[in-house]
Amino acid sequence: MSSIRVTTLPNGLRVATDTMPDVQSVSLGCWVGVGTRNEAASVNGVAHLVEHMLFKGTPGRSAFRISEEIENVGGQLNAYTTREQTAYYAKVLHEDSGLALDILADMIQHSTLDADELARERTVVLQEIGQSADTPDDIIFDHFQATAYPGQALGRPVLGSSEIVAELPRQALVDYIAGHYGAPGMVLSAAGRIEHDRLVEMADKAFGHLSSTAPPKPEAAQYQGGDYREARDLEQMHFVLGFDGVGVHDPDFYAHSVLSTLLGGGMSSRLFQEVREKRGLVYSIYTFTGGYHDGGLFGVYAGTGEDEVAELVPVICDELAKVGEDVTEDEVARARAQLKAGTLMALESTMSRCEQLGQQLLIYDRPIPVDEIVRKIDGVDRDTVVAAAKRLRASRPTVAALGPIDRLESYDRIAARLA
Amino acid sequence: MSSIRVTTLPNGLRVATDTMPDVQSVSLGCWVGVGTRNEAASVNGVAHLVEHMLFKGTPGRSAFRISEEIENVGGQLNAYTTREQTAYYAKVLHEDSGLALDILADMIQHSTLDADELARERTVVLQEIGQSADTPDDIIFDHFQATAYPGQALGRPVLGSSEIVAELPRQALVDYIAGHYGAPGMVLSAAGRIEHDRLVEMADKAFGHLSSTAPPKPEAAQYQGGDYREARDLEQMHFVLGFDGVGVHDPDFYAHSVLSTLLGGGMSSRLFQEVREKRGLVYSIYTFTGGYHDGGLFGVYAGTGEDEVAELVPVICDELAKVGEDVTEDEVARARAQLKAGTLMALESTMSRCEQLGQQLLIYDRPIPVDEIVRKIDGVDRDTVVAAAKRLRASRPTVAALGPIDRLESYDRIAARLA
Repeated sequence: MSSIRVTTLPNGLRVATDTMPDVQSVSLGCWVGVGTRNEAASVNGVAHLVEHMLFKGTPGRSAFRISEEIENVGGQLNAYTTREQTAYYAKVLHEDSGLALDILADMIQHSTLDADELARERTVVLQEIGQSADTPDDIIFDHFQATAYPGQALGRPVLGSSEIVAELPRQALVDYIAGHYGAPGMVLSAAGRIEHDRLVEMADKAFGHLSSTAPPKPEAAQYQGGDYREARDLEQMHFVLGFDGVGVHDPDFYAHSVLSTLLGGGMSSRLFQEVREKRGLVYSIYTFTGGYHDGGLFGVYAGTGEDEVAELVPVICDELAKVGEDVTEDEVARARAQLKAGTLMALESTMSRCEQLGQQLLIYDRPIPVDEIVRKIDGVDRDTVVAAAKRLRASRPTVAALGPIDRLESYDRIAARLA
Repeated sequence: MSSIRVTTLPNGLRVATDTMPDVQSVSLGCWVGVGTRNEAASVNGVAHLVEHMLFKGTPGRSAFRISEEIENVGGQLNAYTTREQTAYYAKVLHEDSGLALDILADMIQHSTLDADELARERTVVLQEIGQSADTPDDIIFDHFQATAYPGQALGRPVLGSSEIVAELPRQALVDYIAGHYGAPGMVLSAAGRIEHDRLVEMADKAFGHLSSTAPPKPEAAQYQGGDYREARDLEQMHFVLGFDGVGVHDPDFYAHSVLSTLLGGGMSSRLFQEVREKRGLVYSIYTFTGGYHDGGLFGVYAGTGEDEVAELVPVICDELAKVGEDVTEDEVARARAQLKAGTLMALESTMSRCEQLGQQLLIYDRPIPVDEIVRKIDGVDRDTVVAAAKRLRASRPTVAALGPIDRLESYDRIAARLA
């Protein structure tokens, strides 16, 4: 039943396809297994600036030509950088997959990193940093990350700091690419109306200039936790409370996903019910998980007005404490159903399938069949969720708060509530 | 080739399906042809508060029960309110479409609007208003709208003001529903793995309690334009410049879409190239169009640092002035390709198809075949785009700015650049 095929080219590049014959489009991208975590502190932001600069021209294509060629056929080209991955991807009508591949291969292997373009692009990223700083429910997550992993690459912001980005020399970008963009650390993934053999043939020609060097391993993650609070004149206090979570290879990975879902993954979740529905304290409250190769984060976000801060924080702590005691089989079953349905529904999108395939090959070195994911979700029961909740609470909490924080209780008080 | 069918029930409710036999899910929703525009000034926010309150319980289902039932099967239930529409929709695996329909019909016809629930939900909306106020690139659009349509329902915010929402009496919600939630102003739309005849049969039973009253027509839109500027301590000035655009029935509708796309719809667009790529002044810049039954808006959003404000605004004005002179057939062709590909790609999502079908029936009283949309896009050429640009510039501009505005030139100066 699987429509997935993977071929490894001689240089180590993995080419993976998930064929969907009934759709009109193809999503196609390069997933590179490096990101902010692979940066030295002195060049924080270089992974993201490289991502920007690969759109700025090759010997055969100017920056304008890159965007013009893909948009002439109505396609979209985009990219993102995370702590552990950088992705370059396109969505096009199926007859244009060759063009999309050609552009992606050109950008990734032949970008000139022109000095004038770099000077301008630094200022674009400085604007991006400004925009992020103006968005409290965005920037709060950078403070949260820094507090969870202080002094480590994993704790630094993807965009970098203004000071570093303004001065990043061209050579830092050249070095980063040379050290991190080798074929073994990269996956070319496609989903939609595409033939595997044809894509492999094209990729074999198009990606001949990749080095076969594997990227170096980043330093191990060392979760620490702690307290960040910043007063700002805002309507709401934007608040994140988090813990040492699980990595993508951890046997408890799905138990934590189920726990996150039943705590704050939907309208019927405990936090939504208690904090929004019963008490009316927030508009937004949700949990999130972030898994890395080693270690991960588990957190709750909530935004509330100054008058509600004093009530909000104890209630969240209380729900986190209680869930390890009184979670029911019904709640666990509902969270499993939500995760399974989400997995099945994601199969309808070429972009979701392309991204999942690329990420799975980077993380697990193989595509994970949907049946296997469903089986693992089904393997989570009340006991494993209780164990997951206890494991979380054993870690030192991470608190990040931005806005009217005068009525936010002390870190020690919060930690005591969770102990 | 069309998989779309529409049946009108005796009470006037239109039931429309777009069958996609190869997918696992169904998206299904009620699109109601009223929104903020249908409110009296004294109850601004009531349409949105009704949307919230329809999740808060019926005689047969508590608020928790509504969310539990849909999430027990891994489904998602959501809603939104705009100036002219209110939508309630679910996405479920195909075997659960009957349950989703039953819940939607119950919410829409039998919500009790319990007084205690209403008291709490008012505070939730007050938090939502606070969150929006804290997000500059969100709230700026409310100021833009108010400046374009001052003193009119179309200019008022969807969320309402804190003062009004805090006091909105239950009777205002009861009256709004009684006057605006009749069957003739509503469409039940579904896309995905669903049979039309079966849905019609279920809907005929489930929606028997709708009135057959058509909603009253709102007052005519009277675009005025003007100037709003608010100093706030932010990294960026968030800036919107707009004009009197076209309504959804206007023969120039697609010409304005093409103009918007080539000006600010992608990486190859004029504003992206000139403002971001050549000058590095912004991270975000884009155009947008908003069409109403009568009239519409056309605008540009950009966010930039204090030092760049003085350069940014004249460049945007210059591009808006130039496009009516020197736009090329190539640019028009590229914008057409982008719009057509976007239309085709949207067909792959059950939710996009469900929403489009619901909206088309509300607006045009019939489903619009994809071929017809493509033909209309193809009918746009350089001359129609030039005419569209001239028509825009003939209107009085609307300026909205929030952030470090000291170096923003006067409204008259901006207007003179565009004259």
